[in-house]
Amino acid sequence: MTYTVKFLPHNISVAVEQNESLIRAAMEAGVHINASCGGTGVCGKCRVLLEEGTLDGGISEHLSGDDQKKGYRLACQAQITSDITVRIPVESQVDTSRLNEQSGGRHTAKAVYSDVNELRQDGLFIPPVEKIYLELAPAVVGDNQADMARIINHLRFNHNEHRLNMNLDLIRKIPDLIREGDFKVTATIVRPVREDGKNEIVNIEPFDTTARNFGIAVDVGTTTVYGQLLDLHTGEVLAQHGEFNSQISYGEDVISRIMFAEKGDGLEVLHKKIIDTINKIIREILFEGKVGKHEITTITIAGNSTMTQLLLKINPAYIRREPYVPASVMYPPFRAKEIDIDLADHTIALIYPGVSSYVGGDIISGVMASGMYRFSELTLYMDIGTNAEIAIGHKDWMVCTAASAGPAFEGGGVKFGMRAVKGAIEDFSINPETYEPMIITVGNKKAKGICGSGMITLTAKLLEAGVIDSRGKFNRTLNTPRIRQTDEIWEYVLVYKENTAIDRDITITEPDIDNLIRAKGAMYSAALTLLEEIGMSIKDIERIILAGGFGSYVDLQSAITIGLLPEIEPDKVTYLGNGSLLGCKINALTNALRRDVMNVVNMMTNFELASTHSYMDHYMGALFLPHTEMNYFPKVKARLEKLRK
Amino acid sequence: MTYTVKFLPHNISVAVEQNESLIRAAMEAGVHINASCGGTGVCGKCRVLLEEGTLDGGISEHLSGDDQKKGYRLACQAQITSDITVRIPVESQVDTSRLNEQSGGRHTAKAVYSDVNELRQDGLFIPPVEKIYLELAPAVVGDNQADMARIINHLRFNHNEHRLNMNLDLIRKIPDLIREGDFKVTATIVRPVREDGKNEIVNIEPFDTTARNFGIAVDVGTTTVYGQLLDLHTGEVLAQHGEFNSQISYGEDVISRIMFAEKGDGLEVLHKKIIDTINKIIREILFEGKVGKHEITTITIAGNSTMTQLLLKINPAYIRREPYVPASVMYPPFRAKEIDIDLADHTIALIYPGVSSYVGGDIISGVMASGMYRFSELTLYMDIGTNAEIAIGHKDWMVCTAASAGPAFEGGGVKFGMRAVKGAIEDFSINPETYEPMIITVGNKKAKGICGSGMITLTAKLLEAGVIDSRGKFNRTLNTPRIRQTDEIWEYVLVYKENTAIDRDITITEPDIDNLIRAKGAMYSAALTLLEEIGMSIKDIERIILAGGFGSYVDLQSAITIGLLPEIEPDKVTYLGNGSLLGCKINALTNALRRDVMNVVNMMTNFELASTHSYMDHYMGALFLPHTEMNYFPKVKARLEKLRK
Repeated sequence: MTYTVKFLPHNISVAVEQNESLIRAAMEAGVHINASCGGTGVCGKCRVLLEEGTLDGGISEHLSGDDQKKGYRLACQAQITSDITVRIPVESQVDTSRLNEQSGGRHTAKAVYSDVNELRQDGLFIPPVEKIYLELAPAVVGDNQADMARIINHLRFNHNEHRLNMNLDLIRKIPDLIREGDFKVTATIVRPVREDGKNEIVNIEPFDTTARNFGIAVDVGTTTVYGQLLDLHTGEVLAQHGEFNSQISYGEDVISRIMFAEKGDGLEVLHKKIIDTINKIIREILFEGKVGKHEITTITIAGNSTMTQLLLKINPAYIRREPYVPASVMYPPFRAKEIDIDLADHTIALIYPGVSSYVGGDIISGVMASGMYRFSELTLYMDIGTNAEIAIGHKDWMVCTAASAGPAFEGGGVKFGMRAVKGAIEDFSINPETYEPMIITVGNKKAKGICGSGMITLTAKLLEAGVIDSRGKFNRTLNTPRIRQTDEIWEYVLVYKENTAIDRDITITEPDIDNLIRAKGAMYSAALTLLEEIGMSIKDIERIILAGGFGSYVDLQSAITIGLLPEIEPDKVTYLGNGSLLGCKINALTNALRRDVMNVVNMMTNFELASTHSYMDHYMGALFLPHTEMNYFPKVKARLEKLRK
Repeated sequence: MTYTVKFLPHNISVAVEQNESLIRAAMEAGVHINASCGGTGVCGKCRVLLEEGTLDGGISEHLSGDDQKKGYRLACQAQITSDITVRIPVESQVDTSRLNEQSGGRHTAKAVYSDVNELRQDGLFIPPVEKIYLELAPAVVGDNQADMARIINHLRFNHNEHRLNMNLDLIRKIPDLIREGDFKVTATIVRPVREDGKNEIVNIEPFDTTARNFGIAVDVGTTTVYGQLLDLHTGEVLAQHGEFNSQISYGEDVISRIMFAEKGDGLEVLHKKIIDTINKIIREILFEGKVGKHEITTITIAGNSTMTQLLLKINPAYIRREPYVPASVMYPPFRAKEIDIDLADHTIALIYPGVSSYVGGDIISGVMASGMYRFSELTLYMDIGTNAEIAIGHKDWMVCTAASAGPAFEGGGVKFGMRAVKGAIEDFSINPETYEPMIITVGNKKAKGICGSGMITLTAKLLEAGVIDSRGKFNRTLNTPRIRQTDEIWEYVLVYKENTAIDRDITITEPDIDNLIRAKGAMYSAALTLLEEIGMSIKDIERIILAGGFGSYVDLQSAITIGLLPEIEPDKVTYLGNGSLLGCKINALTNALRRDVMNVVNMMTNFELASTHSYMDHYMGALFLPHTEMNYFPKVKARLEKLRK
């Protein structure tokens, strides 16, 4: 059920879902309401006057009885349950003449459609690890074939399964297991990538356990690691959990991790750290999903090449040295326990293949999840994270590259940076005259810090309001106590400590903005360089797919305003969220994808930015908001000029 | 160089090799000379008179100066260096009228021709594990493919190698190894059995190590374990070593081993014991062959199904229980270290496939080594050991079975039984009037005991001389102190203690002979039953192949006389020696054989004697010398009748 909310005096209407909070509706519409507590109702600033319709809630001690009668409500406490008209009081309202120059309503990217039902309809819902129930003929005099032969022959003749083998560990268990189940057993079979490969029987269980077949998908990011528990029958995600990569204390980016790995037992240490993180995630999701370790048949894992080599305990030294050589870009299936992942002996680990030292399995996983390799539109795929990874292409060809963006997109290198969990400032607007903020936090909780997408919006809005300039420096002349210098660092106070959850003022600082500019600069210039290398330009891009943890939250106009994304119609941008995790999930659900992956890896051409002379020029040019070459951003340029007139 | 030796008064001539000892020439010719010290020259009884020609040696303090001048020599101390005529003195000579009734000269089986040059000529000399030297293009800017991809692509384009893969352990080592060798490396590749299978790269070494590629072949017998070190380039055996299977203290036959394995940690114990034995053999042969552990690329192993399961630590309980089911009859290649064999990480273990619980990899290995599956003659293959294994067939079909013979053939269950090592009594004849023996030991050393082939000859000669009857009981009426009763057990003194190496009289006892009769009975009746099951008879057999440790020593006529072998022309009998070991050796040298093996295993029909009603009847009939049904042995019957007339 959707309702229409009309904001006065702006005279802007927006359609919102039932029970949406009024303050989020305002943000959506691009209407500023002063609100500095993140939507928790404690600052009492977000007063609005309900002129038509009814609201659920919004009454507060911050409103006098008289005001309440007049129809004043706190926007952050009011849910929309009908079509309404509300008026923003003058004290929290900007000069209406300037309203239309603002960047307008919030535009987030649509999600890429990805549905297991589609796989099922296409007959592709065949997990790489399957269970088959076998009612074997019991061994008797006259039919005393070997236990293993009995299983294999049954699969051959009754299930049309061929090219079967099994390893010694399993053969050891079979004689007892087969009799424990009175010759009724369930076989777990791993499919080969190629149809002419071998099918490996990895487990035999007594009786029928086919109803319980689960997988785990893991995205190993440099900063964060996410895991999902999957029901391989339904494709359903039963549980999900993220953790910081506990290698982070040994370096924030891949280069510093590699340097650490090269010293003494550094490789051992980093290997153990990432395994610890993964095992913690596994414990959490198994507990939440009520699934036993032994019921997990598959774990699919994607990470960049450095994360992958550290995970597999492979010396990454040659990744960071010219000519940047990874040990391998494809890895054979192996038992998860071989790398100390705390799962059963039979659980198979599938590692996503990559392309090069700096274009790893995570981007391939995302590209696969996005499906861009199946379509004819020229697509720009951007995985926004500590490692910025970019792919451009369509069903006939694909190129890719990667750049080190630093951790700003993931809340790293930002004074109050945090992941997009409850209490993270995720949305922001600013009164261009009073410089008072409108703050919305994840979960409408008291603010704890700023997440990556919040940083992008903050920077864009500060730029539009002239609070910062195109170099990201604060205008020291503005008349507001929120802009101040602390320890010689200029900053803007987002939330005063009395309204935070951390009992400190939460601010955004010049170094924070500088880190963000460098991150977005790396990303944009990588895309520009890659396009230039293949003789194309930003204008040729027909579609953008955003991947990365904050893809679903990021305000597209803000991302364009700061020069992270090129100017493009918002409806041409879709987001994948964690594309790497999604690719892992699909990989665990359909073996058909694994075949596609090999084709994509083989057709993907990799460009090394370090070997591409124009990259540094493009990067230097991108260290401005939005860019030194403003012709790349004509609309942003026009809007900023109007706002500052 | 061969010479002719004529023995008088027998007037028998025999051709012998230069430097053969005169006493062995006499044994060869079937000429008895009293000799009770085994050929060591200490008893001084084997006096012969040289009438023509010259001998090297044979002078001894046991001969007076006068005798020496007359031409007397000790036969055991004299080497043949010319054509000669010697006369056996009357005191050690039998009644010449009876000479022709003796079983005649020694007939040992010819060796089955098995030559690596033949394999080479047929283009089959491609070991299952090969080394290939690669001069890779070093990684540079513009060619920075992954290390693993570089190796695989080089193999693909420069060596036409396809379907390659490698495991995680190896990928871990590659980045450093490839640079240690400055991109010059040697790849070790394991071939699949099927041509469409995968080639696995199991090792990468810096620089060119192709000249050093070695394999180990191991036959795991219930009683004895043999290992050979092989040069995989030349096919040469560089070293060989045998040890008793140290499981032996937990039971002499497979049934008692299985029973032990079923209790507590019995399986662990037996597994560890056989691995210890194998590791000891490996140490010996590597030391002798001057080969390093890391230079061994393959270990091929054959054993019966119980030995195989104990080796692989697989519960053998169901092997001994009806319906006698092994865990598997085929095993995938695996790393030798997986079962704690003390070889390098990359060494691949190949286990010979078997057919059933009682027809294991050892007999298949022997059948493969014999080549019988390639020829059209109907062949009886007999592997003579604690487990008697029999195969009958030719290139179009094959049947097999196994029986428990007990350890008598390998020196077990025999009071002075021992393996055929130095000091073992291996040949024997008896003066049919004085009952004085002629004893020859392995290596002409003082006697220590009796080996398996010695037992067969002893039993046959004692039977022919009427010292024992057809039930194997001593004739208590004969006038010789050599037949006596000790602790109520009848025995014949082969060597008095003053001439032994063990300071005890060495005897053959009635229980010894009884064990041998049961062993040969199991063997013969198994063959008879198997023939009957397929509607054939002993007469249809065109060829016999003997396998087993003593195949090369056994006197064929003696084996026929006691009823171990059917009556057949000696030239139709060939011996393989340790067929299982030979099959393992060939397996390590040519992958083509591994493909044949799968075909043979698939065409082999197994009969379970325990499920075959006539077996017990045949067995009972075979518990006589040679058999209750003397019509199976018409020639033996005729000869025994003449000898006893």
